[in-house]
Order: sequence, then structure tokens, then C-alpha cells
Amino acid sequence: MTAYAPPVQRLITELSKLPGVGGRTAQRLAFHLLRLSDEEAFALADAIREVKEKIGLCERCFNLADGPICRMCADERRDSDVICVVEEPSDVISIERTHEFRGRYHVLGGALSPIDGIDPEDLKIAELYQRVESGPVREVVIATNPTTTGEATALHIAERLRESAPEVAVTRLASGLPVGADLEYADELTLGRAFAGRRAV
Amino acid sequence: MTAYAPPVQRLITELSKLPGVGGRTAQRLAFHLLRLSDEEAFALADAIREVKEKIGLCERCFNLADGPICRMCADERRDSDVICVVEEPSDVISIERTHEFRGRYHVLGGALSPIDGIDPEDLKIAELYQRVESGPVREVVIATNPTTTGEATALHIAERLRESAPEVAVTRLASGLPVGADLEYADELTLGRAFAGRRAV
Repeated sequence: MTAYAPPVQRLITELSKLPGVGGRTAQRLAFHLLRLSDEEAFALADAIREVKEKIGLCERCFNLADGPICRMCADERRDSDVICVVEEPSDVISIERTHEFRGRYHVLGGALSPIDGIDPEDLKIAELYQRVESGPVREVVIATNPTTTGEATALHIAERLRESAPEVAVTRLASGLPVGADLEYADELTLGRAFAGRRAV
Repeated sequence: MTAYAPPVQRLITELSKLPGVGGRTAQRLAFHLLRLSDEEAFALADAIREVKEKIGLCERCFNLADGPICRMCADERRDSDVICVVEEPSDVISIERTHEFRGRYHVLGGALSPIDGIDPEDLKIAELYQRVESGPVREVVIATNPTTTGEATALHIAERLRESAPEVAVTRLASGLPVGADLEYADELTLGRAFAGRRAV
């Protein structure tokens, strides 16, 4: 017999399904929620419900949106002839934080990974080609992660675009040493990339 | 302008109020919830609602309960003449895990801390005295935390019970080296307690 009353056990079980939340953390969070006022706890429950009910994918770029198109696509001041391709909606936020990019996005919904059964049809890749081919697009910045699957996805897209839209510049985010890093602790791959991508000062 | 749609921002704000959850973690959790099916996300929202709606405090021991009295108080096989006094409902779970105790509990709802304005009236201390004085009680095990406030609470209760119920044994959990610890890394207070509490082997 578990020492918890069933509703408490259920909450702990649900909380422990969250990424990075183990049994102990789930228990601590559950007891925290129990100590809160009803109002405060319901605010979290309602925020979860609301986000699932109101948030969908943008029809154009597949970013998260609370209407048919997302805020980035709706913003007329952004350049529509530069498209930045990312894996996930969270990547859009990361790039927006840099204030370096004022174009549009295209969210693939993941990266190609044949071992995990993720093929081009499982991502919004065909939709990207269609966007590039139909609209006036000057540049496609491929900002998938610098991981095996992200690189494979970037290559796959770049090759296809080179054929179907040769007038469009296809670029990739620079790979190299992170700002503030120490050469001594950099891994060989990153240092190798930094070397290969060296620039005149 | 934040890059998030308002419902997403609201969810991140609510999540970041949880203990140990910073802005980045809240964002990661929010995107995780967005990726889940509606059903999975609603299960968490409903578990939060349910726990607040169904769980209250046990009338007898002030542990969490899904009815008028908790499972520990309802279990007739437990000794009712030994009461273990703890600060929080989560402490009951910790002690239950040891399988060392088969008596009843009394949850104070915190520890005495005059600086934070927590006086005896703010805790379920009067209710403890009443339980001890009205029922046949053989022993009161004070299992408040071995912290300044926990110790102060233990002393406060022990003194009062010594006067009002001198026939009841009042004990305190042993303080000393944790199992598996290394003398070299033990703090002076803990090591001092371990010395003071040494036992014949």
C-alpha cells in the first residue's frame, strides 16, 4: 500500500512524466502545489489547459500560433524574402533573443533521423520547398542543430534547393568556439570547425 | 514584445513559480507540454485540480487526507498509543518508507520560528496536547527536523508535555552520522552529536 492518498499519487505520477523531473522532485512539486492556495494551483492547471486549447501551428511556417498564422508571419515589418529554417518552435525563441534576424521562420518539427523512422515526409520539408519556390525568396538560412541529425537535415535541404531554386542563397549558421570558451576545453570537432571556418580579422 | 503567444507566456510564468524551476526550465517544460497530446497534458492539469479539490487535512492528525481522516488514522492495525510528531505531511511519507514505525502521526504544519512570525498558535500544537491528554498515549516521538527551528519546536513540546503528561515518554529521533557517510566530510555539529549520542556495541 502506498502511503499517499490516490489523488496525491496521481499528481506525483503525472508530474514525474515531465522531462528532468524524477520521483523525488515530483513529490516535492506535489507537496508544493498542495500548500498553495486553490487559486494559485488552479492558475497552473488552467494555463496548461489553455495552451493546449488555444495554441496550434502557424499555417505558413509551422511555428506555434494562437491564431491561423503566428506573430512572426503576421508582422509585416519583417523581411519575407529571408527564411530561417529551424527544428523546433523553441529554436525560434532562441534566435529572436539574439535580435540578429528580422526575416521569417520555417519550423520543420524535428530533424531527419532514419534510425528513429523520421523521414522527410514526417517533417514540414515539402512545405518549405513550396514556400521557397512560390514566393520571392532571396536566402534560406538553415539553422538546424549542429548535431548529426541536424547536419543531415541541413545537407538534405541544401542539396534539393540547389537544384530546384538555384537563385536562392542557402546558408548555414557558423559553427565554432562559443563566446567565452577556453580552447583547452573545446572538443576536437568544435575546434576543427572553428579552424575550417576561420575568418580574416 | 515577447516572442511568445500570450497563452504560452502565461504557462511559462505559472511553471516558473514552481520551486526549483527557473525561466529556462519553465520554457523547456512548456514546450514539452505543447508537444504532448491534449489527453496527456490535460491529465496533468486535471491531477492538479483534483488534488486541490479532494485533498484536505485529517481531522485527527492534520496529515493530508482524501476524507475526514487520513489512511494512517483509519488503519486500525496501527498502535494508537505512540504518536510521531512531524513538521510536514511529506515527513510522514519519509518515515513510512523506513518501515520502522507503526504508530500514529501528528503533523504540526511547520516549525516554531518567532523571526518569521510562526508562534505555537500557528501550528497544530494545542491539538497535539489535547490528543496526548485525552487518549491513552505511551510515547510521543518528536521527529521535527534537526534544524534550529525544528529543535526549538521539539524542546517547546517536550517541556510542556513533561509538565502536563509526565507519564508519557517523550523521545527525539537520534542525530548523528548518516549511514554511508565519511568522518572526514562530516560537519562539526553532526560529528559532535554523533559523539554525544554514542552507544555501546
